[in-house]
Amino acid sequence: MNRIYLDNAATTPLAEEVIDAMVDVMKVNYGNPSSTHTFGQEAKVLIENVRREAAEYLHVSPSEIIFTSCGTESNNMIIKSCVNHLGVQRIITSPLEHKCVAETVLDVKKRLGVEVVYLRPDKKGDLDLKDLEQALKSSDKKTLVTLMHANNEIGNMLDIAEVSTLCKEHGALFHSDTVQSMAHTALDFSKIPLDFASCSAHKFHGPKGSGFAFVRRSSALKGIITGGPQERSIRAGTENVCGIVGLGTALQLCVDHMDEYEQRIKEVKKYAIDALANNIVGVRFNGRSAEIDRSLYTVLSVLLPFKDPMIGLKLDMKGIAVSQGSACSSGASHPSMVMMTVLDDNEMEHCTPLRVSFSHFTTKHEIDALVDALVEISETFGIEKANIEHR
Amino acid sequence: MNRIYLDNAATTPLAEEVIDAMVDVMKVNYGNPSSTHTFGQEAKVLIENVRREAAEYLHVSPSEIIFTSCGTESNNMIIKSCVNHLGVQRIITSPLEHKCVAETVLDVKKRLGVEVVYLRPDKKGDLDLKDLEQALKSSDKKTLVTLMHANNEIGNMLDIAEVSTLCKEHGALFHSDTVQSMAHTALDFSKIPLDFASCSAHKFHGPKGSGFAFVRRSSALKGIITGGPQERSIRAGTENVCGIVGLGTALQLCVDHMDEYEQRIKEVKKYAIDALANNIVGVRFNGRSAEIDRSLYTVLSVLLPFKDPMIGLKLDMKGIAVSQGSACSSGASHPSMVMMTVLDDNEMEHCTPLRVSFSHFTTKHEIDALVDALVEISETFGIEKANIEHR
Repeated sequence: MNRIYLDNAATTPLAEEVIDAMVDVMKVNYGNPSSTHTFGQEAKVLIENVRREAAEYLHVSPSEIIFTSCGTESNNMIIKSCVNHLGVQRIITSPLEHKCVAETVLDVKKRLGVEVVYLRPDKKGDLDLKDLEQALKSSDKKTLVTLMHANNEIGNMLDIAEVSTLCKEHGALFHSDTVQSMAHTALDFSKIPLDFASCSAHKFHGPKGSGFAFVRRSSALKGIITGGPQERSIRAGTENVCGIVGLGTALQLCVDHMDEYEQRIKEVKKYAIDALANNIVGVRFNGRSAEIDRSLYTVLSVLLPFKDPMIGLKLDMKGIAVSQGSACSSGASHPSMVMMTVLDDNEMEHCTPLRVSFSHFTTKHEIDALVDALVEISETFGIEKANIEHR
Repeated sequence: MNRIYLDNAATTPLAEEVIDAMVDVMKVNYGNPSSTHTFGQEAKVLIENVRREAAEYLHVSPSEIIFTSCGTESNNMIIKSCVNHLGVQRIITSPLEHKCVAETVLDVKKRLGVEVVYLRPDKKGDLDLKDLEQALKSSDKKTLVTLMHANNEIGNMLDIAEVSTLCKEHGALFHSDTVQSMAHTALDFSKIPLDFASCSAHKFHGPKGSGFAFVRRSSALKGIITGGPQERSIRAGTENVCGIVGLGTALQLCVDHMDEYEQRIKEVKKYAIDALANNIVGVRFNGRSAEIDRSLYTVLSVLLPFKDPMIGLKLDMKGIAVSQGSACSSGASHPSMVMMTVLDDNEMEHCTPLRVSFSHFTTKHEIDALVDALVEISETFGIEKANIEHR
């Protein structure tokens, strides 16, 4: 069976160039970057090159890139260290955040008594920045705003430039979980005055176990993993040299081909939207995900007009991998906060959400196979196939 | 120039089998282990296999192995979570610990007011367990004892079975940083009732960026990185599948060849001790490291009878990589706590410590090259070459 991978928001296949670069490091550059001898210094040069490339992409200083083991660690480090070391007593966030932000905010609330304010998204999954402004005005406590850039389930994008400006005006720190948008969109942090952001290599054809945090130099963040002086003493521990080189290679490939990949994926996404709409009567799309220019182009959140908790398994048996939520909660039996936001009770009861997520490796042929499979399943629920032919 | 790597306590070259296994995973098993589809479940199976193998090695339950990004993270997680979640108000430790333990203990002392008791090692770098018993008896506060198994600078070994028993008798938790001994020595935690231990794959020919914590199931440790339900919710974040498989492959190789590797390395170490003693008048060895059966066989801490802060650089220019301290502090200009313990003022002023650390790849030929280089440097300081020929 030819397997089809349409779960690129969960993780992506590694680019061949990434594997090759990592193998070279594993074979040759095994030194510890903290060692002063040649083996060590060669490894050090490799990670500093990646740091410089990442900084160039974001238009920041290399010293503002702190390598970590993943996006989750980056987000934890930022939020917890803001509370532990920067005097943050209040966090403004929303129910749309990834678990690694949502649970971390809950942790500092429960354990350290931090006040938490949740902004209320509308049914499209959008936030009203007037609410943010109101929340920023309403307290003198040192505040951290943590709002993601691109939602991992519905692809809604936040205007982080505007949020940054608002936060700056009100003396609040701003962290954005940029895990889904990093390497997929142009990000210029010399123009967007946010304080913290996060990156995970495996979301853009790099390896798992490698990410970074953007930490604005002026913030004096101290981190949560103490020990040796690695990463400006913000993140101790021997650097994952091979993983960092993998991250760098993957990032550079995405940056070099950003327009090309974006155009190709948008075309595939548009094709998927049309094919689904034309073939399954009553199909809808959640949040902004079907609005090509208002959503992250890699994510499409579909709402099927029938209730089938087994849909993931059925598609898997046909060799097609999609997600019923984010990967981190895909084993969970209850719907995610994001789905509870964008779906009403009737939709919850009678429909099935499905996340289809693309990469530049995704083909229209694969989309055809998904649509055929979904049409077949739909028919077992008495949903008629639309008359419009899409091919 | 043929390069010689004698800094295996800092990090080790990857075994070929490890690289091959990791490449297979990178090419084929790129799924996210949290995904319910086949791509995800295949990745899940891979990490669960490694978890089972690691548990077998330690004679513990697989659910007691928590994958992390490194030894530093493991040690941070254990110590900080003991304070955050298990009510620890007091820590007993020693000045011999690795920075990732020492700095973490200082962090919870400064930030959270935890009381810290330092046991005093003798000039050989050994602790008197009567002091530990006394310290355990002297307070009713909930106590964590954190003492490393094998010292990374001088190779001294602690009797963790006896320490475990003492801690158990006095109701204290016991964590041992086992990063240097893991995969190099037999460890049976069904007989040693310690609560927590740590592992870093790159210390035994596995990849950097991959390690685990042993967390005794009964301890209810919660971890420090929150988010998704990975690793029994103790360590959130997408698992580094490729790194975990690398760890597993490296661990299994070491476990399968443990006696053979130990014997081979001990022979090389013995050869190095004799060659140095026979060729450099006045050379000595620090701590227990020259006592083959009382020290970690991979580490030899040499004390050269002349003062040369440039010794590392001089050897590096001859293609030989050794360490003047641990890698994590090798850039530091001041001597480590360990060296300050085992050296007196006179030795500090007139001698040079050098750490030579071995792997099963190390050859006697490489030791000869090191000794020749050291003899040459010694002569520039007027140290005569001993008459005894060692070859």
